[in-house]
Amino acid sequence: AAVVARGMGTCCVSGCNDLKVDEDGKEFTLGGKTYHEGDYISLDGSTGNIYEGDIKTVEATISGNFGCIMRWADQFRKMQVRTNADTPADAENAVRLGAEGIGLCRTEHMFFEAGRIPKFRRMILSDTVEQREAALQELIPYQREDFIAMYKALRGRPMTVRFLDPPLHEFLPKTEPEIQALAKDMGLTVEHVKARIAELHEFNPMMGLRGCRLGVIYPEITRMQTRAIIEAAIAVKLECNYDIVPEIMVPLVGDRKELLFVKHIIVETAEKVMREKGYFLNYKVGTMIEIPRAALTADEIAKEADFFSFGTNDLTQMTFGFSRDDAGKFLDKYYDDKIYEFDPFSRLDQDGVGQLMKMAVERGRKENPMLHCGICGEHGGDPSSVAFCQELGLDYVSCSPFRVPIARLAAAQAAINLKRQGR
Amino acid sequence: AAVVARGMGTCCVSGCNDLKVDEDGKEFTLGGKTYHEGDYISLDGSTGNIYEGDIKTVEATISGNFGCIMRWADQFRKMQVRTNADTPADAENAVRLGAEGIGLCRTEHMFFEAGRIPKFRRMILSDTVEQREAALQELIPYQREDFIAMYKALRGRPMTVRFLDPPLHEFLPKTEPEIQALAKDMGLTVEHVKARIAELHEFNPMMGLRGCRLGVIYPEITRMQTRAIIEAAIAVKLECNYDIVPEIMVPLVGDRKELLFVKHIIVETAEKVMREKGYFLNYKVGTMIEIPRAALTADEIAKEADFFSFGTNDLTQMTFGFSRDDAGKFLDKYYDDKIYEFDPFSRLDQDGVGQLMKMAVERGRKENPMLHCGICGEHGGDPSSVAFCQELGLDYVSCSPFRVPIARLAAAQAAINLKRQGR
Repeated sequence: AAVVARGMGTCCVSGCNDLKVDEDGKEFTLGGKTYHEGDYISLDGSTGNIYEGDIKTVEATISGNFGCIMRWADQFRKMQVRTNADTPADAENAVRLGAEGIGLCRTEHMFFEAGRIPKFRRMILSDTVEQREAALQELIPYQREDFIAMYKALRGRPMTVRFLDPPLHEFLPKTEPEIQALAKDMGLTVEHVKARIAELHEFNPMMGLRGCRLGVIYPEITRMQTRAIIEAAIAVKLECNYDIVPEIMVPLVGDRKELLFVKHIIVETAEKVMREKGYFLNYKVGTMIEIPRAALTADEIAKEADFFSFGTNDLTQMTFGFSRDDAGKFLDKYYDDKIYEFDPFSRLDQDGVGQLMKMAVERGRKENPMLHCGICGEHGGDPSSVAFCQELGLDYVSCSPFRVPIARLAAAQAAINLKRQGR
Repeated sequence: AAVVARGMGTCCVSGCNDLKVDEDGKEFTLGGKTYHEGDYISLDGSTGNIYEGDIKTVEATISGNFGCIMRWADQFRKMQVRTNADTPADAENAVRLGAEGIGLCRTEHMFFEAGRIPKFRRMILSDTVEQREAALQELIPYQREDFIAMYKALRGRPMTVRFLDPPLHEFLPKTEPEIQALAKDMGLTVEHVKARIAELHEFNPMMGLRGCRLGVIYPEITRMQTRAIIEAAIAVKLECNYDIVPEIMVPLVGDRKELLFVKHIIVETAEKVMREKGYFLNYKVGTMIEIPRAALTADEIAKEADFFSFGTNDLTQMTFGFSRDDAGKFLDKYYDDKIYEFDPFSRLDQDGVGQLMKMAVERGRKENPMLHCGICGEHGGDPSSVAFCQELGLDYVSCSPFRVPIARLAAAQAAINLKRQGR
């Protein structure tokens, strides 16, 4: 919870055993006093103190001594610091905190919005390619406007857009009324919708039909997303004259041919859109390295990729063979018994996951010396992990907006350390 | 289906599009004739022919020319051929087909039997260690008798016993009447049982609380299984005088300290049982290599292991990042699009998974030259995978009983090929 809160720029006090919560009664007791829904309390995340009432806070800015330290850090820093952001507001905020671009823009978050999810669900429940393409056609304007807003927020800074990643069933309704509404909206029976939801069910969704596998099975989704990003880039170039080089990122690749298959669709679509618009721009196609097999065959994959971005959250899950959602059941015991010294989802496991990253960078760059390498997993904002990324020779780290200053400082410290060691 | 059927020694004809099945009517139509439930047909799995009526079959034996070829093969073969077997009948059968021991005895199958599953469920639903130990106490005699029967069937051949592997919720009831019966049996409310089942639910069970993680969280299970196997080995040694060296295999290890933790419990329990019985025998503790991180840190893990057994089914899942249960949804398209040339669950992926295996063998043996290495995944019976195992220098392959002759022949061919290449 503390890590997630930090990512959101929100203060958090965790593990407060003295707090007795009565969920049904919507109240809690602490220090002999009962607080009700709507009451204010204030937290100091650094000390762990909890105060009564609404103590006004000041928005974090990079100014004064802090700004000075950041400027010093940037003089020594070798790696670029980007941010993981899916909304223009996040992008603006990150730029204010010193982000030099977006290392990870997750497109799926854009489909969960109230006005869009019904259209997206209609696409998922389509029976034919034609139906699916018609539904996607309706989504293009939204997706294009999203990218336009992001490019404008970035004012010329680069952005890596990751294509649709989660399994499709994550977008489907779960409650009976929602299912009924969707069936009505689509002119289908409730049974038909339920049957389709059951069909999409997966035993281990983390290891299911997701990432670039979606692009292989439904190339029309890849076409839609490519069109939206190229159209947006051209529009912003023409309106604002920012020098935009779209970076398209294909997730969950495990084999060169898999990336090649999706890349063919991207290139074909991009060329088509540019011919239509009569405007040509450069663009890059790269991949996430988040499956062990991608790291093991990185020399092959680098033949088709302009960049590698380490998705160390997933890479950690696959390398350890446990999912972040389930590992909570045993990790505490592992710390107690001193089997693990730290949470591999917070701090990069250099012994295991790190080996795969090292292998991928070395093999990838040997095959493709121009390969741009970075990290966009949660570890991109953790100082010890940032130092490791510097040792690997990564070009950039990307982290959640509020961790950008930490990453800038950590990257500078890592660069200075390496220099002192004469490396 | 064909692979599974082969493993069972059962004939299979798959992909018969002419067959129209009416599941509700319990009949099917083929060649203009309708067959009803209870009618006999006969299959020839080699030709794909389907015959009307019950053609008598002859049990496969290794005799005549076949027996001669097998004897020739054994003269050239360098790797030992073991079998994956969980029952004395399977073990007997495999020995008849030439298996030189058991490479994988899965203990969980022993708990699913009608008389035992209620006791096992009682263990799972226990709230305290004491309750759990009491439930396990009742399971020891069954487990010990299983091992005694297996050791007797093997008549002195070695057996690797894998400790409990699946997530515990796999053992719990799913239907309402079953849940009610369990609640009544345990003197608990239905709500309590349901709450506990919900608590054990996992989002990605393949990557959840299973394998050696169970031994870390519930050391009492490891103690019970260790006691059962050591008691059984001593009993059979005293009764039949077979020279038994129990091989205890800890599954799903991803870190040296994790294996060490479980090994301490095994050693402590084994020594205690032997003191009680006044009889001491040698035993070995080894591990499955089935998680990428185990292969990557094999040098460390080999410090604590007497043997490595490659669980290539799981290793394939984690290396590719897809589960065998879910991959069916996209693998066919991958073959059609020529992204994959074969099913990595049938034929070992030498480019990716194979790299991890090579790494593990080399690093493991460098640290521990006595390390015995083998494979017990489904690939142990596939000729091209067996050849790869020979190239890696494995000591043995282990496969389902009916594939033992194939493995013997493939191992001989691989050894001859390597010799011809002067390796």
